[in-house]
Amino acid sequence: MPVLYGYWRSSATYRVRIGANLKGIAYQSVPINLLKKEQLGDAYAKLNPEKLLPAFKLDDGTVLTQSMAILEYIEEAYSTGEHLLPSDSISRGKVRAFANVIASDTHPIQNLRVINYLDSKFNLESEVRVKWVKHWIETGFTALESIAASREMPFLFSDKPTLAEVCLVPQVFNARRFGVDMKQFPNLAEVDSQCNELAAFQNAHPSKQEDAIG
Amino acid sequence: MPVLYGYWRSSATYRVRIGANLKGIAYQSVPINLLKKEQLGDAYAKLNPEKLLPAFKLDDGTVLTQSMAILEYIEEAYSTGEHLLPSDSISRGKVRAFANVIASDTHPIQNLRVINYLDSKFNLESEVRVKWVKHWIETGFTALESIAASREMPFLFSDKPTLAEVCLVPQVFNARRFGVDMKQFPNLAEVDSQCNELAAFQNAHPSKQEDAIG
Repeated sequence: MPVLYGYWRSSATYRVRIGANLKGIAYQSVPINLLKKEQLGDAYAKLNPEKLLPAFKLDDGTVLTQSMAILEYIEEAYSTGEHLLPSDSISRGKVRAFANVIASDTHPIQNLRVINYLDSKFNLESEVRVKWVKHWIETGFTALESIAASREMPFLFSDKPTLAEVCLVPQVFNARRFGVDMKQFPNLAEVDSQCNELAAFQNAHPSKQEDAIG
Repeated sequence: MPVLYGYWRSSATYRVRIGANLKGIAYQSVPINLLKKEQLGDAYAKLNPEKLLPAFKLDDGTVLTQSMAILEYIEEAYSTGEHLLPSDSISRGKVRAFANVIASDTHPIQNLRVINYLDSKFNLESEVRVKWVKHWIETGFTALESIAASREMPFLFSDKPTLAEVCLVPQVFNARRFGVDMKQFPNLAEVDSQCNELAAFQNAHPSKQEDAIG
């Protein structure tokens, strides 16, 4: 059984949990506590020299890192469950572009290690920290809302969730945590809400993980 | 003929130029001047609501955005030239993970819009700005150097460049521009140097673009 090294509130880990659930892949969860900086320890660094979550260990011992690479891998390697990507190349390009607005241009700029570094250099007040996080989430969501508003399907690109929703839902969770008003993004909020009615998303929710703290 | 909207020094545009050259895809270049903020204007925002470079317009008028999504698209849609990804899923996962350390965890944090925003909030001295850029490049490269050091092939994952080098070479160009000492990363520097002997990389170099400023 593959092993997912992650953290309940890590957005990138949350993506992989959703993807694995949509594909019907059983996996073992190994929590790595970001607040205790366990990801920086020697044991985890041997699995992932980047010292970031998640990592996904396959049955043959291979360790894959980077959530988007892991998701592409499970889509290619498992014929079970739902497809995370449509079948034609242009639609796949659109889904991947939507997903990457979050995975490349939004989440990495506002995640914990960047905030911590910013804080260590500029002694941020918590208000400034929250403003930074909200700025980048709202910038990304403004672009994505215009795409979501013109969708012709119940979900973003299909009648079922794809890699686009796999990335969107954890980012919306994160947005709410930092007080982003989702009323600015009604279409994204609606897609998020539809996803959260599905078991694959519900079971991947941070609050349902064994390492979740109340 | 497809159209690539980009900027000579944009790292993400540079990636797509290399990828298109490796695949042997002829395209028309349309320069969008980042220093004049042309990417924020209405004309470009209609092509890409995220207002970031690059965008790639296909013959049927479809506009794809996000460099990694464009590169996956051309790999899927064009059977010409070199493969940007290996054939087996595990190797593809490793190549994509390497590429995403740059495309998700390095470049987006140190690119122009983040620096500009940081500057607008904290009135950075140019020394602090350069320190920020170097910190994130060196963090990413430290992880990638350990992967490159254990490679068993002339290039990172194969006897030819893949998506990993397509992302690495523009990031090394960027690193040198900001004074990162590549002696810290001898394996990455060696791979970069090998790539730059190939015409596909040479012709994609920022200095060779029509909008390049001396």
